[in-house]
Amino acid sequence: MSIRCKAAVAWAAGEALVIEEVELSPPQPLEIRIKVVCTSLCRSDLTAWLSQAQPQIFPRIFGHEASGIVESVGEGVTEFELGDHVLTLFSGECMRCRPCASRKSNICHTLGLERQGLMHSDKKTRFSLKGKPIYHYCAVSSFSEYTVVHSGCAVKISPVAPLDKICLLSCGVAAGLGAAWKVANISEGSTVVIFGLGTVGLSVAQGAKLRGASRIIGIDTNPEKSERAKAFGVTDFLNPNDHDQPIQQVISGITDDGADYAFECVGDTGMITVALQSCCAGWGLTVTLGVPKEKPDISAHYGLFLSGRTLTGSLFGGWKPKSDLPSLVDMYLKKEIEIDSYITHNLMFEDINEAFELMREGKCLRCVIHMPK
Amino acid sequence: MSIRCKAAVAWAAGEALVIEEVELSPPQPLEIRIKVVCTSLCRSDLTAWLSQAQPQIFPRIFGHEASGIVESVGEGVTEFELGDHVLTLFSGECMRCRPCASRKSNICHTLGLERQGLMHSDKKTRFSLKGKPIYHYCAVSSFSEYTVVHSGCAVKISPVAPLDKICLLSCGVAAGLGAAWKVANISEGSTVVIFGLGTVGLSVAQGAKLRGASRIIGIDTNPEKSERAKAFGVTDFLNPNDHDQPIQQVISGITDDGADYAFECVGDTGMITVALQSCCAGWGLTVTLGVPKEKPDISAHYGLFLSGRTLTGSLFGGWKPKSDLPSLVDMYLKKEIEIDSYITHNLMFEDINEAFELMREGKCLRCVIHMPK
Repeated sequence: MSIRCKAAVAWAAGEALVIEEVELSPPQPLEIRIKVVCTSLCRSDLTAWLSQAQPQIFPRIFGHEASGIVESVGEGVTEFELGDHVLTLFSGECMRCRPCASRKSNICHTLGLERQGLMHSDKKTRFSLKGKPIYHYCAVSSFSEYTVVHSGCAVKISPVAPLDKICLLSCGVAAGLGAAWKVANISEGSTVVIFGLGTVGLSVAQGAKLRGASRIIGIDTNPEKSERAKAFGVTDFLNPNDHDQPIQQVISGITDDGADYAFECVGDTGMITVALQSCCAGWGLTVTLGVPKEKPDISAHYGLFLSGRTLTGSLFGGWKPKSDLPSLVDMYLKKEIEIDSYITHNLMFEDINEAFELMREGKCLRCVIHMPK
Repeated sequence: MSIRCKAAVAWAAGEALVIEEVELSPPQPLEIRIKVVCTSLCRSDLTAWLSQAQPQIFPRIFGHEASGIVESVGEGVTEFELGDHVLTLFSGECMRCRPCASRKSNICHTLGLERQGLMHSDKKTRFSLKGKPIYHYCAVSSFSEYTVVHSGCAVKISPVAPLDKICLLSCGVAAGLGAAWKVANISEGSTVVIFGLGTVGLSVAQGAKLRGASRIIGIDTNPEKSERAKAFGVTDFLNPNDHDQPIQQVISGITDDGADYAFECVGDTGMITVALQSCCAGWGLTVTLGVPKEKPDISAHYGLFLSGRTLTGSLFGGWKPKSDLPSLVDMYLKKEIEIDSYITHNLMFEDINEAFELMREGKCLRCVIHMPK
């Protein structure tokens, strides 16, 4: 059965969202319908909302970092039942394709990042308004009271975990922790530099701190990030605007020729080059996590590599989302990882545009948006 | 005591070498003087000889892949004595600096690649002609009957190893084997693609074959490389000029969306991008070994990394030269690795310009140059 519910619809790139009553189809085979409980705003939502690159996939419902409760299940779904608590997955896990079957990758061939605003299975939308399709975002679209996702794009979690907090594990915090632990595998006593101190960057910092990094250098052009960063383990805050030298030279100067690890969490390909230059020769590892907003090509001198530096990427921190997320939730419940301090704002659904403004102005880490009960 | 000996002097970039009688100073503290027995021509010698970038460091004596016998030792040298058989090291190992002390890098801070045509210790030359300095190459300069090197830039090897063969372990063959084993750590059953089938590329192929790679795809625009490549383990030879599609698409088509490992052994930054595109998402690893002759910047779409590909470099195959080379020589003596088939030509010292011509025309793998007895 289709249902009608409220959703925040982006009618065009960069235009304020409008809360509309939309039609949502029932879950198709292997899909589930979720009552969204909380959804936080991630920088990628903002970037995609502002982007003029795909005008054809508006109107659109954004949101991909969310917690919720299963409302109904489609044909063939055996792993979920009504009332299950879940996190949504912007990149799913089919459990069967070559990467899913391998231990070496978390990027599913079947349910990976969906970029066309459609559902993976039939390349259609589940939302509509007056018969016209409303496009998805990452096949999640959580800025809605209800949404439909593929059962491979959600994961069942402990029913005692607070849904208004652990929604952050659906993307940002997990992405940062995984980049530090699974992708870089930071070792004790090492030196780490992090470009961009948003939620992802500060989750890398938390991950580095928990691994016993001796020095965690945080880079951001926003001076307001300094104080907050220290609470997450950043030992040295550097604002490139405060220095005449290029920031990579400043870093090199204070780290005995470069850091052991560098993380690019800004989403700027030029900054990836700077990150590489901030790493030491021999074994310096640069991990890129950001999604660049403009120039998509990374450029770097070959000598950086020939002298022993490595560049790799981290999508969702290397976590296999269905296999690994429940244990991160459990770590939170055991107070082994911190989530709450990333939440700087709590907003009601009707105030969702405020969240976009706060993030645009760099005034928040995570705004958690609470859906109507 | 200074000695006089014959050396092949390059008076200017790209000009035929002239065999001159030069003056060679005695070894300074911590240096040794070597009677060169055999020296093979490596592509880097050719590239540096042709390069117009550093006209101020001519006249110059090239050559860095060599075997020889210690003729005299400088003050403080305890690890070598007269008559020791040695290989020269274009990148040395001081045993004390941060990278040398670490297990993670083979790039010595003190005795690494020397690019100014001088000796590491006093930034002077040991060769002269009529009182004017003749510059070094990589602080080795083996295109001479005798040469002086830092004791950290030579390694003592088994006296029973044939010096006319194992000189290839001083650079090319060791570089390729190490890239396959130590840097990429190729696993059994994997798919490997190699760009450039010179000695280094074919040594990667040998390394991959010995690790049990199931498919080794060799790429070269020279069709004559095909037959020889198969002897070193290449299972599929592809000439980009034979295909309408870009070669990365051809590779993707025959490898289930990309190889597990790609090696760039051409020395072309554009080819590094193609190598990255030839690797699979999730875990594809690209290793760059070549020294680009032109455009020094690598450019690649960030999505290649974010989807799980990694780019790293390999200088001398990651081997710690003094620590690791003797065991490679022993492997050769036990017939566990193959060297002889890389030697396509043997030339006497006076015919050294022929070696340059053969390499320039792509007609050889290694030319071994035999010094006068």
